[in-house]
Amino acid sequence: MEETFVPFRGIKNDLHGRLLCYKQDWTSGIKAGFRILAPTTYIFFASAIPVISFGEQLERNTDGILTAVQTLASTAICGIIHSIIGGQPLLILGVAEPTVIMYTFMFNFAKQRPDLGPGLFLAWTGWVCVWTAILLFLLAILGACSIINRFTRLAGELFGMLIAMLFMQQAIKGLVEEFRVPERDNPHLTEFMPSWRFANGMFALVLSFGLLLTALRSRKARSWRYGTGWLRSLIADYGVPIMVVVWTAVSYIPSESVPKGIPRRLVSPNPWSPGAYQNWTVIKDMLNVPVIYILGAFVPATMIAVLYYFDHSVASQLAQQKEFNLRKPSSFHYDLLLLGFLTLMCGLVGIPPSNGVIPQSPMHTKSLATLKHQLLRNKLVTTARKSMQKNSSLGQLYGNMQEAYQQMQTPLIYQEPSARQGLKELKESTIQLASSMGHIDAPIDETVFDVEKEIDDLLPVEVKEQRVSNLLQATMVGGCVAAMPVLRMIPTSVLWGYFAYMAIESLPGNQFWERILLLFTAPSRRYKVLEDYHATFVETVPFKSIVAFTTFQTLYLLACFGITWVPIAGLLFPLLIMLLVPVRQYILSKFFKGVHLQDLDAADYEESPAVPFHLPMEGEFGSRPSHAESGEILDEMITRSRGEVKRINSPKITSSTATPIRDTKLLQSPRISEKAYSPQIGKLRGQQSPLSGGRGPFSPRTGEPKPSNLGTSPRISTPND
Amino acid sequence: MEETFVPFRGIKNDLHGRLLCYKQDWTSGIKAGFRILAPTTYIFFASAIPVISFGEQLERNTDGILTAVQTLASTAICGIIHSIIGGQPLLILGVAEPTVIMYTFMFNFAKQRPDLGPGLFLAWTGWVCVWTAILLFLLAILGACSIINRFTRLAGELFGMLIAMLFMQQAIKGLVEEFRVPERDNPHLTEFMPSWRFANGMFALVLSFGLLLTALRSRKARSWRYGTGWLRSLIADYGVPIMVVVWTAVSYIPSESVPKGIPRRLVSPNPWSPGAYQNWTVIKDMLNVPVIYILGAFVPATMIAVLYYFDHSVASQLAQQKEFNLRKPSSFHYDLLLLGFLTLMCGLVGIPPSNGVIPQSPMHTKSLATLKHQLLRNKLVTTARKSMQKNSSLGQLYGNMQEAYQQMQTPLIYQEPSARQGLKELKESTIQLASSMGHIDAPIDETVFDVEKEIDDLLPVEVKEQRVSNLLQATMVGGCVAAMPVLRMIPTSVLWGYFAYMAIESLPGNQFWERILLLFTAPSRRYKVLEDYHATFVETVPFKSIVAFTTFQTLYLLACFGITWVPIAGLLFPLLIMLLVPVRQYILSKFFKGVHLQDLDAADYEESPAVPFHLPMEGEFGSRPSHAESGEILDEMITRSRGEVKRINSPKITSSTATPIRDTKLLQSPRISEKAYSPQIGKLRGQQSPLSGGRGPFSPRTGEPKPSNLGTSPRISTPND
Repeated sequence: MEETFVPFRGIKNDLHGRLLCYKQDWTSGIKAGFRILAPTTYIFFASAIPVISFGEQLERNTDGILTAVQTLASTAICGIIHSIIGGQPLLILGVAEPTVIMYTFMFNFAKQRPDLGPGLFLAWTGWVCVWTAILLFLLAILGACSIINRFTRLAGELFGMLIAMLFMQQAIKGLVEEFRVPERDNPHLTEFMPSWRFANGMFALVLSFGLLLTALRSRKARSWRYGTGWLRSLIADYGVPIMVVVWTAVSYIPSESVPKGIPRRLVSPNPWSPGAYQNWTVIKDMLNVPVIYILGAFVPATMIAVLYYFDHSVASQLAQQKEFNLRKPSSFHYDLLLLGFLTLMCGLVGIPPSNGVIPQSPMHTKSLATLKHQLLRNKLVTTARKSMQKNSSLGQLYGNMQEAYQQMQTPLIYQEPSARQGLKELKESTIQLASSMGHIDAPIDETVFDVEKEIDDLLPVEVKEQRVSNLLQATMVGGCVAAMPVLRMIPTSVLWGYFAYMAIESLPGNQFWERILLLFTAPSRRYKVLEDYHATFVETVPFKSIVAFTTFQTLYLLACFGITWVPIAGLLFPLLIMLLVPVRQYILSKFFKGVHLQDLDAADYEESPAVPFHLPMEGEFGSRPSHAESGEILDEMITRSRGEVKRINSPKITSSTATPIRDTKLLQSPRISEKAYSPQIGKLRGQQSPLSGGRGPFSPRTGEPKPSNLGTSPRISTPND
Repeated sequence: MEETFVPFRGIKNDLHGRLLCYKQDWTSGIKAGFRILAPTTYIFFASAIPVISFGEQLERNTDGILTAVQTLASTAICGIIHSIIGGQPLLILGVAEPTVIMYTFMFNFAKQRPDLGPGLFLAWTGWVCVWTAILLFLLAILGACSIINRFTRLAGELFGMLIAMLFMQQAIKGLVEEFRVPERDNPHLTEFMPSWRFANGMFALVLSFGLLLTALRSRKARSWRYGTGWLRSLIADYGVPIMVVVWTAVSYIPSESVPKGIPRRLVSPNPWSPGAYQNWTVIKDMLNVPVIYILGAFVPATMIAVLYYFDHSVASQLAQQKEFNLRKPSSFHYDLLLLGFLTLMCGLVGIPPSNGVIPQSPMHTKSLATLKHQLLRNKLVTTARKSMQKNSSLGQLYGNMQEAYQQMQTPLIYQEPSARQGLKELKESTIQLASSMGHIDAPIDETVFDVEKEIDDLLPVEVKEQRVSNLLQATMVGGCVAAMPVLRMIPTSVLWGYFAYMAIESLPGNQFWERILLLFTAPSRRYKVLEDYHATFVETVPFKSIVAFTTFQTLYLLACFGITWVPIAGLLFPLLIMLLVPVRQYILSKFFKGVHLQDLDAADYEESPAVPFHLPMEGEFGSRPSHAESGEILDEMITRSRGEVKRINSPKITSSTATPIRDTKLLQSPRISEKAYSPQIGKLRGQQSPLSGGRGPFSPRTGEPKPSNLGTSPRISTPND
């Protein structure tokens, strides 16, 4: 993306690009049929459960003025609008933790002012949203998203860690609260006797840790050894919501012997109860706000605008990472403009605004990649089986499969020519296999060609880019408002467990987190980090520099986290994160060597040293996952390597290729590998840094051909565990 | 071991063999210095904690007549005597769960008889012990242990599973009990109010699951990625007792807000309190027992004798498995005789008798193998480094190391000549490495020869066979009696967690358990079982036969477990287990093919089919663990493969050897491997079935040379995870 600040140009480009594929966005989603429900449900739960928890949190913090009804409504309305007229339909909108923090700051401020008070709080936030919307319009129109390539890994991952810390903080606070008498409740109730309070707290510990541990387990179900494939897939896809239901059921087991208030459950008014609609008419009160506060609203508005600009763009960026091989264009400018309108709307009806959320947005893309993989795989397997029944030779088989593959491709002007060559690698690999078995011209059958496995291994990552899943999940979130009586059955302690789960789940793949762990890793075991993660820096950057860089980042994170605790100045925390962008560009580059900085935090605006590069033939590597199943491959790749495609040639021998002796040796003995490996690292640096902007998902898809994702995209290999 | 039933011959042989190494049993242990404390402490905790729990259990079951004081005293006294004058010092004695069950049955019987009652219960058990001792004397003298080779894996593993189920049952029962009012307590105390009872139960859940999960984690500390080596070793060695301390400390956190009785803690009288010595004078009461009951005591006595004969021998057998490469002789007959005396003694002083315990006995051997490994390794590393400093050539280095290795060997007449060749493999491997690097005659240094790693990988498993650790741990158990005020700080819920931990820890390596899991494994993932376990049967036996065999074994296990629930007939459960020996020999062989039965449950008395065998050169395989550390190798090998040395050549490339292409291929594609692999399986079958008796640890070590454990013992390879 060029750094252009000509007004409206970015928005125009975005609109032009997205309009061209708008119809296909719908037809493609509808064609997927009922299968679209898997990613939809997955994202619905990932979106709804935190939003309900945030509602619970907001209710405590705003003395009940805002509740889960309002957060759900905002998420649903903004989500539906964005999925229909938004630019990038992979982006998921929702009320996020930073918004809750900002609203809490604003409530605490308003409460203390006699001429504002809780009564005019929502009206005042209406004005804040008006100012925020104006600022967002300006940012969008002036092309502020052009500089998004300056948001390096450093800032993005720090923000991700901050979100994780806020989630975890809420989990711990919530659990501690379970041992206390809630502020707004009558302390003379039976359930607030010391004995029952203690019992409630202990029960909360059991429920929340139960949810946390089982949810973490269930996410790994695809690699379980037990149970049939569909059961494992079901648990992996729906395990977390299933566990919420299970632990809610568990919470009812001792119902006979304990008072009704134990364990504590969600408190939220029914949307049809009187008073629940108060906030919807807030626009009437807006003119009652004193002028000084209308003007003063500009201060929090700048913070929220900075926050949304950053959060929305980074969420969108993470949902469109290079590894996903997206075909359709990005839409940063236009989406920011739309966010301005959505914020305005939310402010005027007195509900907290929604913005693009992490980690749900990348989770959405990932689940759609799994869907596309399954669709492609089923089609190709059927084709291959049919061909084999007709005693086709290898050439015919390949031809048929290629034809089927082409039919599945999105017919877009954005599609690069090289992708049309499709399945080239599959052909090569199959020929290699067949010739090694002496079957090159003979009809082939499944003893030679293990259809499902071969296809599974070779399919490139592609994403089912459409609007249906986003629309459906947002609608389902809206349905939650009506389902409030059911939602109130969920114990609050289960929500705290879910918060902890979200925090922990967001860590793998965050290189900042991995570097923190590296500091505590025994020197003799550091090579293992290289095996597991996309951590080429372990080899190329001196350990001292890694320590210094990580320590700086950790201190900065703690400063950001610390400032959220400061009563009013806490409002400034988004500024601190944005400040990291110039700090990275102008200050860090003075303390660290360019080469090291490039490995630790690749920035597109810095020159990466030119290194001669010879990519080994794919066949030579043979580093394809062999026994993994489709979901596992994707899990492995996308969860763990949010940043960089893992390029580790684990010592894996597949049935069709030679042993990767040379490469595994490089890997096993880091001493030797440094020299031999670095050329590839040079290449990786240039190609695969997702947060480095321009060459990432934000490459000009509008004209320039994108490198083929079949021919040259690096293969992913998973350790055989 | 020959099946000889000439009276006293077995005892004489045992005594002869053990007397020859008696002095060395002490000197060797003392020479090990303070390092002996690691296995000692490890076994002390593994021994003391269950014994305390059993004491707690007995106290509930016998209305306080027997307590932890008595179980600890029995374990300590029997342990000290056995460690000094016992035959096999690797065998750990203790009061075991079956003994507790038998005593519970006997108490329930005695309580209901008006002419016996709780008052004469101990006197009556005195008579039971007298009869038991007489039966054990007869069994020992007549050479009943000669048929121990008929105790196949089937019976041994079923017994192990039964013990695990009993442990788990106690854990669950105990936890449920935490929600109720204890029978003997005053139900009007504050802590038994419904609210506090509920709170106590929930707190118990937190403490017991906390202990269970952290203990399971800490045992794997050696393979953790974080922390320094000594810290990881410390946690792996002492993690479980540390966790008992930690969770006991946690139980004191809410002490201010809760009544004193929450959480519930161990109840046991101080040994110095009045009445605690009542049982020691039980011999006075023995003549008050009516004659009919003195004679009737013979019935439980036969059951206990059968139980002890089986339990003691199997525990001893498991402590002397083939893989441990023991040098000193076994002593089944003499140990059974001594057990008779110990039972008699315990009966006369009114304490429950001790016998050889599972899983503590094999744990003891394993911890001593780790110790010996460390000692050998340190010695050889020092020697090698010294040699290298003098610029020795490879030949000199090897010579020096061989000399050092010989010095560490036990100078026994039992030592087989081939072991004197020592380190042959190390020499070969080093020469191969050096020649590949072109260094064959030049002085070598650490760049060529990674001393610690090479030695670590090549050292054979050897065990520090001595009496000191057993004596010390038994003495420490005795010390627990004095430390009763400290022990009473442990919450009962922590003990229930420990029970669950013991049950779960005893499962890996139990092939019966692994087969049960296999039934629930998805067909496409069954090959993974082959990768992880010593499960050659997965390849050689049709799945239907595995299912049938496992189902039979499971039903039999459930029958054994079920019978322990039956009020009086439950006494007969040892008979049911012993019955499995003839069932296996005469009935199962009619339903299963001999070859399959041999793979599922190798029995020495059955002919195994002769298969031609060509063992590939060790160098050709190159299947040595590369990055694992010493403890990990041992953990891997001994924990997981209690039965069979794992012979899986995982695709591992070490720096010194070529890639094991052929073998990994065999492993990765089970379809192909069946034919190519079976010759090796034939060999394995003959060589490595530990429970198959004669060729296992019970081989006649007294004269016949044992195959060298350096030259031909199969190498162990660990998957690189």
